[in-house]
Amino acid sequence: MKDRFYVIKIGGNVVDDEANLSSFLQAFALVQGKKILIHGGGKIATKIADKLGVESKYINGRRITDDDTIDIVTMVYGGLLNKKIVAQLQSLQCNAIGLTGADANLIPATKRPVKDIDYGWVGDVKTNDIEKAAFSILLENNLVPVLAPLTHDGNGHILNTNADTIAAAVAVALSQAYDVRLIYCFEKKGVLENVDDENSVINLITKEKYSQLLAEKKLFAGILPKIDNAFAAIDAGVHEVLIGDAKDLLQNTTANTSGTLIKQ
Amino acid sequence: MKDRFYVIKIGGNVVDDEANLSSFLQAFALVQGKKILIHGGGKIATKIADKLGVESKYINGRRITDDDTIDIVTMVYGGLLNKKIVAQLQSLQCNAIGLTGADANLIPATKRPVKDIDYGWVGDVKTNDIEKAAFSILLENNLVPVLAPLTHDGNGHILNTNADTIAAAVAVALSQAYDVRLIYCFEKKGVLENVDDENSVINLITKEKYSQLLAEKKLFAGILPKIDNAFAAIDAGVHEVLIGDAKDLLQNTTANTSGTLIKQ
Repeated sequence: MKDRFYVIKIGGNVVDDEANLSSFLQAFALVQGKKILIHGGGKIATKIADKLGVESKYINGRRITDDDTIDIVTMVYGGLLNKKIVAQLQSLQCNAIGLTGADANLIPATKRPVKDIDYGWVGDVKTNDIEKAAFSILLENNLVPVLAPLTHDGNGHILNTNADTIAAAVAVALSQAYDVRLIYCFEKKGVLENVDDENSVINLITKEKYSQLLAEKKLFAGILPKIDNAFAAIDAGVHEVLIGDAKDLLQNTTANTSGTLIKQ
Repeated sequence: MKDRFYVIKIGGNVVDDEANLSSFLQAFALVQGKKILIHGGGKIATKIADKLGVESKYINGRRITDDDTIDIVTMVYGGLLNKKIVAQLQSLQCNAIGLTGADANLIPATKRPVKDIDYGWVGDVKTNDIEKAAFSILLENNLVPVLAPLTHDGNGHILNTNADTIAAAVAVALSQAYDVRLIYCFEKKGVLENVDDENSVINLITKEKYSQLLAEKKLFAGILPKIDNAFAAIDAGVHEVLIGDAKDLLQNTTANTSGTLIKQ
Protein backbone atom coordinates (compact mmCIF):
# COMPACT_ATOMS: atom_id res chain seq x y z
CA MET A 1 0.00 0.00 0.00
CA LYS A 2 1.24 3.46 -0.84
CA ASP A 3 1.80 6.08 1.87
CA ARG A 4 -0.82 8.78 2.19
CA PHE A 5 0.45 12.16 0.95
CA TYR A 6 -1.37 15.47 1.33
CA VAL A 7 -0.78 18.20 -1.24
CA ILE A 8 -2.32 21.29 0.34
CA LYS A 9 -2.83 24.62 -1.38
CA ILE A 10 -3.70 27.92 0.29
CA GLY A 11 -4.48 31.16 -1.46
CA GLY A 12 -4.43 34.87 -0.77
CA ASN A 13 -7.35 34.83 1.67
CA VAL A 14 -5.20 32.81 4.10
CA VAL A 15 -1.80 34.29 3.26
CA ASP A 16 -2.89 37.94 3.49
CA ASP A 17 -4.26 37.77 7.01
CA GLU A 18 -1.73 37.17 9.78
CA ALA A 19 -4.24 35.65 12.20
CA ASN A 20 -5.75 33.36 9.52
CA LEU A 21 -2.31 32.26 8.40
CA SER A 22 -1.15 31.57 11.91
CA SER A 23 -4.14 29.39 12.80
CA PHE A 24 -3.92 27.60 9.47
CA LEU A 25 -0.23 26.82 10.05
CA GLN A 26 -1.01 25.46 13.51
CA ALA A 27 -3.45 23.02 11.91
CA PHE A 28 -1.07 22.22 9.05
CA ALA A 29 1.71 21.38 11.51
CA LEU A 30 -0.61 18.78 13.10
CA VAL A 31 -1.47 17.00 9.84
CA GLN A 32 -0.14 13.46 10.14
CA GLY A 33 1.77 11.80 7.33
CA LYS A 34 3.65 13.18 4.37
CA LYS A 35 2.57 16.62 3.24
CA ILE A 36 3.48 19.62 1.15
CA LEU A 37 2.18 23.18 1.25
CA ILE A 38 1.77 25.37 -1.83
CA HIS A 39 1.01 28.99 -1.09
CA GLY A 40 -0.38 31.66 -3.36
CA GLY A 41 0.83 35.20 -3.43
CA GLY A 42 -1.93 37.35 -2.13
CA LYS A 43 -2.16 41.09 -2.23
CA ILE A 44 1.14 41.93 -0.62
CA ALA A 45 3.05 41.81 -3.93
CA THR A 46 0.68 44.44 -5.30
CA LYS A 47 1.14 46.58 -2.19
CA ILE A 48 4.91 46.42 -2.44
CA ALA A 49 4.79 47.06 -6.19
CA ASP A 50 2.70 50.19 -5.47
CA LYS A 51 5.24 51.42 -2.93
CA LEU A 52 8.06 50.78 -5.40
CA GLY A 53 6.19 52.70 -8.07
CA VAL A 54 5.66 49.62 -10.26
CA GLU A 55 2.21 49.47 -11.80
CA SER A 56 0.39 46.13 -11.42
CA LYS A 57 -1.19 45.30 -14.76
CA TYR A 58 -3.88 42.70 -15.29
CA ILE A 59 -5.61 41.33 -18.38
CA ASN A 60 -8.75 39.24 -17.73
CA GLY A 61 -7.80 39.07 -14.06
CA ARG A 62 -4.33 37.70 -14.76
CA ARG A 63 -1.23 39.56 -13.67
CA ILE A 64 1.13 40.65 -16.43
CA THR A 65 4.62 39.86 -15.18
CA ASP A 66 7.08 42.33 -16.69
CA ASP A 67 10.77 42.66 -15.73
CA ASP A 68 10.09 44.70 -12.59
CA THR A 69 7.17 42.52 -11.57
CA ILE A 70 9.06 39.22 -11.73
CA ASP A 71 11.63 40.70 -9.35
CA ILE A 72 8.87 41.77 -6.99
CA VAL A 73 7.06 38.42 -6.95
CA THR A 74 10.39 36.61 -6.58
CA MET A 75 11.09 38.76 -3.51
CA VAL A 76 7.63 38.58 -2.04
CA TYR A 77 6.54 35.02 -2.84
CA GLY A 78 9.95 33.32 -2.72
CA GLY A 79 11.39 35.42 0.11
CA LEU A 80 9.01 37.23 2.42
CA LEU A 81 5.97 34.93 2.42
CA ASN A 82 7.78 31.65 1.95
CA LYS A 83 10.32 32.25 4.73
CA LYS A 84 7.73 33.65 7.15
CA ILE A 85 5.71 30.47 6.68
CA VAL A 86 8.80 28.28 7.10
CA ALA A 87 9.94 30.07 10.27
CA GLN A 88 6.46 29.74 11.78
CA LEU A 89 6.20 26.05 10.88
CA GLN A 90 9.64 25.42 12.38
CA SER A 91 8.42 27.01 15.62
CA LEU A 92 5.58 24.46 15.53
CA GLN A 93 8.01 21.52 15.22
CA CYS A 94 7.14 21.03 11.57
CA ASN A 95 10.36 20.54 9.61
CA ALA A 96 9.51 22.86 6.72
CA ILE A 97 11.84 23.61 3.82
CA GLY A 98 10.86 26.58 1.65
CA LEU A 99 11.42 26.20 -2.07
CA THR A 100 10.50 27.43 -5.52
CA GLY A 101 10.28 25.36 -8.68
CA ALA A 102 13.83 26.46 -9.55
CA ASP A 103 15.32 24.86 -6.45
CA ALA A 104 16.62 21.36 -7.14
CA ASN A 105 14.96 21.87 -10.55
CA LEU A 106 11.74 20.74 -8.86
CA ILE A 107 9.32 22.31 -11.33
CA PRO A 108 10.64 23.11 -14.81
CA ALA A 109 8.43 25.33 -16.91
CA THR A 110 8.35 27.17 -20.21
CA LYS A 111 7.73 30.87 -20.57
CA ARG A 112 4.21 31.21 -21.91
CA PRO A 113 4.33 31.85 -25.66
CA VAL A 114 3.02 35.24 -26.77
CA LYS A 115 -0.20 34.93 -28.76
CA ASP A 116 -2.79 37.68 -28.37
CA ILE A 117 -1.46 38.65 -24.97
CA ASP A 118 2.11 38.86 -23.67
CA TYR A 119 1.86 37.69 -20.07
CA GLY A 120 5.58 38.32 -19.57
CA TRP A 121 7.57 36.11 -17.20
CA VAL A 122 4.81 33.58 -16.65
CA GLY A 123 5.52 29.86 -16.62
CA ASP A 124 3.55 26.90 -17.90
CA VAL A 125 4.59 23.83 -15.94
CA LYS A 126 6.33 21.03 -17.86
CA THR A 127 4.37 18.43 -15.97
CA ASN A 128 6.32 15.45 -17.27
CA ASP A 129 9.62 16.98 -16.14
CA ILE A 130 8.77 17.53 -12.48
CA GLU A 131 11.68 16.18 -10.40
CA LYS A 132 9.87 13.37 -8.62
CA ALA A 133 13.13 11.95 -7.27
CA ALA A 134 14.06 15.23 -5.60
CA PHE A 135 10.60 15.55 -4.04
CA SER A 136 10.88 11.97 -2.78
CA ILE A 137 14.29 12.61 -1.18
CA LEU A 138 12.79 15.49 0.79
CA LEU A 139 9.62 13.62 1.76
CA GLU A 140 11.37 10.37 2.68
CA ASN A 141 13.63 12.37 5.00
CA ASN A 142 10.58 13.81 6.76
CA LEU A 143 11.05 17.28 5.38
CA VAL A 144 7.92 19.27 4.56
CA PRO A 145 8.31 21.27 1.33
CA VAL A 146 6.67 24.69 1.28
CA LEU A 147 6.40 25.83 -2.33
CA ALA A 148 6.12 29.41 -3.54
CA PRO A 149 4.23 29.89 -6.83
CA LEU A 150 7.40 30.29 -8.89
CA THR A 151 9.03 28.01 -11.45
CA HIS A 152 11.98 28.45 -13.83
CA ASP A 153 12.71 28.11 -17.51
CA GLY A 154 16.07 26.31 -17.31
CA ASN A 155 17.71 29.31 -18.97
CA GLY A 156 18.25 31.28 -15.79
CA HIS A 157 14.85 32.94 -15.41
CA ILE A 158 12.33 32.64 -12.62
CA LEU A 159 8.72 32.42 -13.86
CA ASN A 160 5.51 33.45 -12.10
CA THR A 161 3.17 30.44 -12.01
CA ASN A 162 -0.37 29.83 -10.78
CA ALA A 163 -0.35 28.08 -7.40
CA ASP A 164 -3.42 25.91 -8.21
CA THR A 165 -1.65 24.64 -11.29
CA ILE A 166 1.53 23.85 -9.36
CA ALA A 167 -0.46 21.99 -6.71
CA ALA A 168 -2.22 19.83 -9.32
CA ALA A 169 1.00 19.14 -11.24
CA VAL A 170 2.90 18.10 -8.10
CA ALA A 171 -0.02 15.93 -6.95
CA VAL A 172 -0.13 14.15 -10.32
CA ALA A 173 3.65 13.72 -10.53
CA LEU A 174 3.81 12.09 -7.10
CA SER A 175 0.68 9.96 -7.47
CA GLN A 176 2.67 6.96 -8.70
CA ALA A 177 4.68 6.90 -5.48
CA TYR A 178 2.02 8.02 -3.02
CA ASP A 179 -1.70 7.83 -2.32
CA VAL A 180 -2.39 11.53 -2.92
CA ARG A 181 -5.19 13.65 -1.52
CA LEU A 182 -5.00 17.09 -3.13
CA ILE A 183 -6.63 19.69 -0.88
CA TYR A 184 -7.62 23.11 -2.18
CA CYS A 185 -8.37 25.50 0.67
CA PHE A 186 -10.68 28.30 -0.39
CA GLU A 187 -13.08 30.74 1.24
CA LYS A 188 -16.09 28.41 1.46
CA LYS A 189 -16.80 25.17 3.31
CA GLY A 190 -16.90 23.26 0.05
CA VAL A 191 -18.88 23.04 -3.18
CA LEU A 192 -22.34 24.32 -2.28
CA GLU A 193 -25.68 23.20 -3.70
CA ASN A 194 -26.98 26.65 -2.84
CA VAL A 195 -24.25 29.27 -3.19
CA ASP A 196 -25.88 31.43 -0.50
CA ASP A 197 -26.08 28.64 2.06
CA GLU A 198 -22.80 27.57 3.70
CA ASN A 199 -24.61 24.53 5.09
CA SER A 200 -25.42 23.13 1.66
CA VAL A 201 -21.98 21.52 1.14
CA ILE A 202 -22.02 18.57 -1.26
CA ASN A 203 -19.88 16.05 0.59
CA LEU A 204 -19.01 13.79 -2.30
CA ILE A 205 -18.83 14.37 -6.03
CA THR A 206 -18.18 11.39 -8.24
CA LYS A 207 -18.18 11.60 -12.03
CA GLU A 208 -21.69 10.23 -12.04
CA LYS A 209 -22.87 12.72 -9.43
CA TYR A 210 -21.15 15.54 -11.34
CA SER A 211 -23.02 14.68 -14.57
CA GLN A 212 -26.23 14.70 -12.61
CA LEU A 213 -25.48 18.07 -10.93
CA LEU A 214 -24.57 19.54 -14.31
CA ALA A 215 -27.77 18.23 -15.88
CA GLU A 216 -29.79 19.73 -13.04
CA LYS A 217 -27.83 23.01 -13.44
CA LYS A 218 -27.39 23.03 -9.68
CA LEU A 219 -23.82 24.31 -9.55
CA PHE A 220 -22.55 27.89 -9.47
CA ALA A 221 -20.65 28.49 -12.72
CA GLY A 222 -17.55 29.79 -10.91
CA ILE A 223 -16.91 26.43 -9.28
CA LEU A 224 -17.00 24.39 -12.51
CA PRO A 225 -13.37 24.97 -13.55
CA LYS A 226 -12.23 23.84 -10.10
CA ILE A 227 -14.20 20.60 -10.40
CA ASP A 228 -13.03 20.02 -13.98
CA ASN A 229 -9.41 20.48 -12.85
CA ALA A 230 -10.01 18.11 -9.96
CA PHE A 231 -11.25 15.37 -12.31
CA ALA A 232 -8.34 16.03 -14.65
CA ALA A 233 -5.95 15.43 -11.72
CA ILE A 234 -7.86 12.28 -10.76
CA ASP A 235 -7.75 10.99 -14.34
CA ALA A 236 -3.98 11.55 -14.21
CA GLY A 237 -3.56 9.42 -11.07
CA VAL A 238 -4.43 11.53 -8.03
CA HIS A 239 -6.49 9.43 -5.60
CA GLU A 240 -8.88 12.19 -4.55
CA VAL A 241 -9.31 15.95 -4.42
CA LEU A 242 -10.84 17.87 -1.54
CA ILE A 243 -12.20 21.41 -1.81
CA GLY A 244 -12.81 23.02 1.54
CA ASP A 245 -12.27 25.84 4.00
CA ALA A 246 -8.74 26.47 5.31
CA LYS A 247 -10.27 26.49 8.80
CA ASP A 248 -11.40 22.88 8.35
CA LEU A 249 -8.00 21.58 7.26
CA LEU A 250 -7.51 19.04 10.03
CA GLN A 251 -10.92 17.47 9.58
CA ASN A 252 -10.36 17.42 5.84
CA THR A 253 -7.28 15.23 6.32
CA THR A 254 -9.40 12.55 8.00
CA ALA A 255 -11.83 10.02 6.49
CA ASN A 256 -14.73 12.10 7.82
CA THR A 257 -14.25 15.19 5.64
CA SER A 258 -16.40 18.31 6.02
CA GLY A 259 -15.58 19.80 2.61
CA THR A 260 -16.31 18.38 -0.83
CA LEU A 261 -14.47 15.20 -1.68
CA ILE A 262 -14.06 14.56 -5.39
CA LYS A 263 -13.35 11.00 -6.45
CA GLN A 264 -13.46 8.74 -9.46
CA MET B 1 39.47 9.34 3.46
CA LYS B 2 36.83 12.00 3.71
CA ASP B 3 35.32 13.60 0.60
CA ARG B 4 36.53 17.06 -0.30
CA PHE B 5 33.88 19.73 0.39
CA TYR B 6 34.10 23.37 -0.64
CA VAL B 7 32.30 25.99 1.44
CA ILE B 8 32.42 29.11 -0.72
CA LYS B 9 31.36 32.59 0.37
CA ILE B 10 30.80 35.59 -1.87
CA GLY B 11 30.04 39.11 -0.73
CA GLY B 12 28.44 42.25 -2.05
CA ASN B 13 31.17 43.04 -4.57
CA VAL B 14 30.20 39.92 -6.52
CA VAL B 15 26.47 39.91 -5.82
CA ASP B 16 25.90 43.58 -6.71
CA ASP B 17 27.33 43.38 -10.20
CA GLU B 18 25.42 41.29 -12.73
CA ALA B 19 28.43 40.60 -14.94
CA ASN B 20 30.67 39.70 -11.97
CA LEU B 21 28.00 37.44 -10.53
CA SER B 22 27.39 35.72 -13.83
CA SER B 23 31.06 34.92 -14.46
CA PHE B 24 31.50 33.82 -10.85
CA LEU B 25 28.55 31.43 -11.14
CA GLN B 26 29.96 29.97 -14.34
CA ALA B 27 33.14 29.12 -12.45
CA PHE B 28 31.22 27.90 -9.39
CA ALA B 29 29.19 25.51 -11.56
CA LEU B 30 32.44 23.93 -12.76
CA VAL B 31 33.88 23.29 -9.28
CA GLN B 32 34.20 19.52 -8.92
CA GLY B 33 33.09 17.73 -5.77
CA LYS B 34 30.68 18.66 -3.03
CA LYS B 35 30.12 22.37 -2.57
CA ILE B 36 27.94 24.99 -0.99
CA LEU B 37 27.58 28.68 -1.75
CA ILE B 38 26.89 31.35 0.89
CA HIS B 39 26.05 34.75 -0.51
CA GLY B 40 26.08 38.11 1.23
CA GLY B 41 23.44 40.72 0.73
CA GLY B 42 25.08 43.62 -1.00
CA LYS B 43 23.65 47.03 -1.60
CA ILE B 44 20.37 46.06 -3.22
CA ALA B 45 18.58 45.71 0.15
CA THR B 46 19.54 49.32 0.93
CA LYS B 47 18.33 50.47 -2.49
CA ILE B 48 14.97 48.75 -2.07
CA ALA B 49 14.65 50.03 1.50
CA ASP B 50 15.22 53.56 0.17
CA LYS B 51 12.51 53.12 -2.44
CA LEU B 52 10.13 51.74 0.20
CA GLY B 53 10.89 54.74 2.44
CA VAL B 54 12.60 52.61 5.10
CA GLU B 55 15.72 54.24 6.50
CA SER B 56 18.82 51.99 6.64
CA LYS B 57 20.48 52.52 10.01
CA TYR B 58 24.00 51.45 10.88
CA ILE B 59 26.02 51.53 14.07
CA ASN B 60 29.77 50.92 13.68
CA GLY B 61 29.14 49.72 10.14
CA ARG B 62 26.58 47.13 11.22
CA ARG B 63 23.02 47.26 9.96
CA ILE B 64 20.32 47.70 12.58
CA THR B 65 17.57 45.26 11.62
CA ASP B 66 14.23 46.67 12.77
CA ASP B 67 10.79 45.21 11.90
CA ASP B 68 10.66 46.77 8.44
CA THR B 69 14.28 45.91 7.70
CA ILE B 70 13.99 42.21 8.51
CA ASP B 71 11.11 42.00 6.01
CA ILE B 72 13.25 43.72 3.39
CA VAL B 73 16.32 41.53 3.87
CA THR B 74 14.10 38.43 3.95
CA MET B 75 12.67 39.49 0.58
CA VAL B 76 15.94 40.56 -0.98
CA TYR B 77 18.41 38.01 0.39
CA GLY B 78 16.07 35.03 0.71
CA GLY B 79 13.99 35.78 -2.38
CA LEU B 80 15.43 38.00 -5.06
CA LEU B 81 19.17 37.27 -4.79
CA ASN B 82 18.92 33.67 -3.69
CA LYS B 83 16.50 32.63 -6.42
CA LYS B 84 18.32 34.56 -9.15
CA ILE B 85 21.48 32.69 -8.22
CA VAL B 86 19.66 29.35 -8.13
CA ALA B 87 17.99 29.90 -11.51
CA GLN B 88 21.33 30.83 -13.08
CA LEU B 89 23.11 27.83 -11.56
CA GLN B 90 20.34 25.55 -12.79
CA SER B 91 20.87 26.90 -16.30
CA LEU B 92 24.54 25.89 -15.89
CA GLN B 93 23.61 22.29 -14.98
CA CYS B 94 24.46 22.87 -11.33
CA ASN B 95 21.68 21.39 -9.19
CA ALA B 96 21.33 24.31 -6.79
CA ILE B 97 18.79 24.49 -3.97
CA GLY B 98 18.33 27.91 -2.39
CA LEU B 99 17.82 27.98 1.36
CA THR B 100 17.98 30.07 4.50
CA GLY B 101 18.96 28.87 7.96
CA ALA B 102 15.25 28.49 8.77
CA ASP B 103 14.71 25.88 6.05
CA ALA B 104 15.02 22.34 7.39
CA ASN B 105 16.16 24.09 10.60
CA LEU B 106 19.62 24.18 9.00
CA ILE B 107 21.04 27.05 11.06
CA PRO B 108 19.36 27.79 14.39
CA ALA B 109 20.34 31.06 15.99
CA THR B 110 19.48 33.30 18.92
CA LYS B 111 18.44 36.92 18.62
CA ARG B 112 21.41 38.97 19.72
CA PRO B 113 20.87 40.13 23.30
CA VAL B 114 20.54 43.89 23.75
CA LYS B 115 23.50 45.32 25.66
CA ASP B 116 24.66 48.82 24.69
CA ILE B 117 23.19 48.51 21.22
CA ASP B 118 19.93 46.95 20.05
CA TYR B 119 20.80 45.38 16.72
CA GLY B 120 17.20 44.27 16.26
CA TRP B 121 16.44 41.04 14.36
CA VAL B 122 20.05 39.89 14.16
CA GLY B 123 21.01 36.28 14.81
CA ASP B 124 24.02 34.74 16.51
CA VAL B 125 24.46 31.23 15.13
CA LYS B 126 24.03 28.34 17.59
CA THR B 127 27.01 26.55 16.10
CA ASN B 128 26.45 23.30 17.98
CA ASP B 129 22.87 23.05 16.73
CA ILE B 130 23.55 23.26 13.01
CA GLU B 131 21.59 20.44 11.31
CA LYS B 132 24.50 18.42 9.96
CA ALA B 133 22.23 15.53 9.03
CA ALA B 134 20.03 17.75 6.84
CA PHE B 135 23.07 19.25 5.12
CA SER B 136 24.41 15.74 4.50
CA ILE B 137 21.13 14.56 2.97
CA LEU B 138 21.32 17.40 0.46
CA LEU B 139 25.02 16.94 -0.30
CA GLU B 140 24.87 13.15 -0.56
CA ASN B 141 22.06 13.55 -3.10
CA ASN B 142 24.26 15.82 -5.21
CA LEU B 143 22.29 18.94 -4.45
CA VAL B 144 24.22 22.20 -4.10
CA PRO B 145 22.89 24.35 -1.26
CA VAL B 146 22.89 28.11 -1.87
CA LEU B 147 22.51 29.86 1.47
CA ALA B 148 21.17 33.36 2.03
CA PRO B 149 22.54 35.16 5.12
CA LEU B 150 19.43 34.52 7.20
CA THR B 151 18.84 32.25 10.19
CA HIS B 152 15.90 31.79 12.57
CA ASP B 153 15.24 31.81 16.29
CA GLY B 154 13.00 28.74 16.52
CA ASN B 155 10.16 30.97 17.71
CA GLY B 156 8.96 31.93 14.26
CA HIS B 157 11.32 34.80 13.46
CA ILE B 158 13.83 35.12 10.67
CA LEU B 159 17.13 36.70 11.77
CA ASN B 160 19.66 38.67 9.73
CA THR B 161 23.06 37.02 10.08
CA ASN B 162 26.55 37.78 8.84
CA ALA B 163 27.43 35.63 5.81
CA ASP B 164 31.11 35.17 6.85
CA THR B 165 29.94 33.82 10.18
CA ILE B 166 27.48 31.42 8.55
CA ALA B 167 30.18 30.17 6.18
CA ALA B 168 32.60 29.47 9.05
CA ALA B 169 29.91 27.81 11.19
CA VAL B 170 28.76 25.52 8.36
CA ALA B 171 32.38 24.66 7.49
CA VAL B 172 33.11 23.71 11.10
CA ALA B 173 29.88 21.73 11.54
CA LEU B 174 30.58 19.63 8.46
CA SER B 175 34.30 19.16 9.06
CA GLN B 176 33.74 15.86 10.87
CA ALA B 177 32.08 14.38 7.80
CA TYR B 178 34.09 16.08 5.06
CA ASP B 179 37.54 17.39 4.27
CA VAL B 180 36.56 21.07 4.18
CA ARG B 181 38.21 23.91 2.31
CA LEU B 182 36.49 27.15 3.32
CA ILE B 183 36.93 29.76 0.58
CA TYR B 184 36.32 33.45 1.23
CA CYS B 185 36.06 35.39 -2.00
CA PHE B 186 36.89 39.05 -1.56
CA GLU B 187 38.06 41.96 -3.67
CA LYS B 188 41.79 41.16 -3.62
CA LYS B 189 43.91 38.27 -4.92
CA GLY B 190 44.67 37.19 -1.35
CA VAL B 191 46.45 38.42 1.76
CA LEU B 192 49.07 40.88 0.51
CA GLU B 193 52.51 41.56 1.96
CA ASN B 194 52.21 45.02 0.45
CA VAL B 195 48.62 46.23 0.47
CA ASP B 196 49.25 48.37 -2.62
CA ASP B 197 50.74 45.54 -4.65
CA GLU B 198 48.29 42.89 -5.95
CA ASN B 199 51.29 40.75 -6.89
CA SER B 200 52.49 40.45 -3.30
CA VAL B 201 50.07 37.64 -2.35
CA ILE B 202 51.28 35.48 0.52
CA ASN B 203 50.50 31.99 -0.78
CA LEU B 204 50.56 30.11 2.49
CA ILE B 205 50.03 31.19 6.07
CA THR B 206 50.63 28.64 8.79
CA LYS B 207 50.40 29.52 12.47
CA GLU B 208 54.17 29.82 12.59
CA LYS B 209 54.26 32.07 9.53
CA TYR B 210 51.42 34.16 10.99
CA SER B 211 53.37 34.78 14.24
CA GLN B 212 56.33 35.81 12.17
CA LEU B 213 54.26 38.18 9.96
CA LEU B 214 52.66 39.70 13.07
CA ALA B 215 56.05 40.20 14.71
CA GLU B 216 57.34 41.89 11.58
CA LYS B 217 54.15 44.02 11.48
CA LYS B 218 53.89 43.20 7.79
CA LEU B 219 50.12 42.76 7.59
CA PHE B 220 47.44 45.38 6.95
CA ALA B 221 45.34 45.67 10.13
CA GLY B 222 42.06 45.16 8.25
CA ILE B 223 42.98 41.62 7.26
CA LEU B 224 43.84 40.41 10.79
CA PRO B 225 40.26 39.55 11.88
CA LYS B 226 39.85 37.44 8.71
CA ILE B 227 43.01 35.48 9.49
CA ASP B 228 42.08 35.10 13.15
CA ASN B 229 38.65 33.76 12.14
CA ALA B 230 40.32 31.40 9.67
CA PHE B 231 42.53 29.91 12.38
CA ALA B 232 39.53 29.66 14.71
CA ALA B 233 37.75 27.59 12.03
CA ILE B 234 40.87 25.45 11.54
CA ASP B 235 41.19 24.89 15.29
CA ALA B 236 37.56 23.73 15.24
CA GLY B 237 38.19 21.13 12.53
CA VAL B 238 38.20 22.84 9.12
CA HIS B 239 41.05 21.44 7.03
CA GLU B 240 42.06 24.71 5.40
CA VAL B 241 40.82 28.21 4.61
CA LEU B 242 41.49 30.10 1.43
CA ILE B 243 41.18 33.86 0.99
CA GLY B 244 41.17 34.97 -2.62
CA ASP B 245 39.56 36.79 -5.50
CA ALA B 246 36.17 35.61 -6.75
CA LYS B 247 37.68 35.68 -10.26
CA ASP B 248 40.22 33.03 -9.23
CA LEU B 249 37.67 30.62 -7.80
CA LEU B 250 38.43 27.68 -10.07
CA GLN B 251 42.17 27.83 -9.50
CA ASN B 252 41.54 28.19 -5.78
CA THR B 253 39.74 24.85 -5.74
CA THR B 254 42.86 23.08 -7.04
CA ALA B 255 46.08 22.16 -5.24
CA ASN B 256 47.83 25.01 -7.00
CA THR B 257 45.98 27.93 -5.38
CA SER B 258 46.60 31.54 -6.37
CA GLY B 259 45.09 33.11 -3.24
CA THR B 260 46.24 32.76 0.36
CA LEU B 261 45.91 29.28 1.82
CA ILE B 262 45.68 29.20 5.60
CA LYS B 263 46.53 25.91 7.30
CA GLN B 264 47.48 24.48 10.66
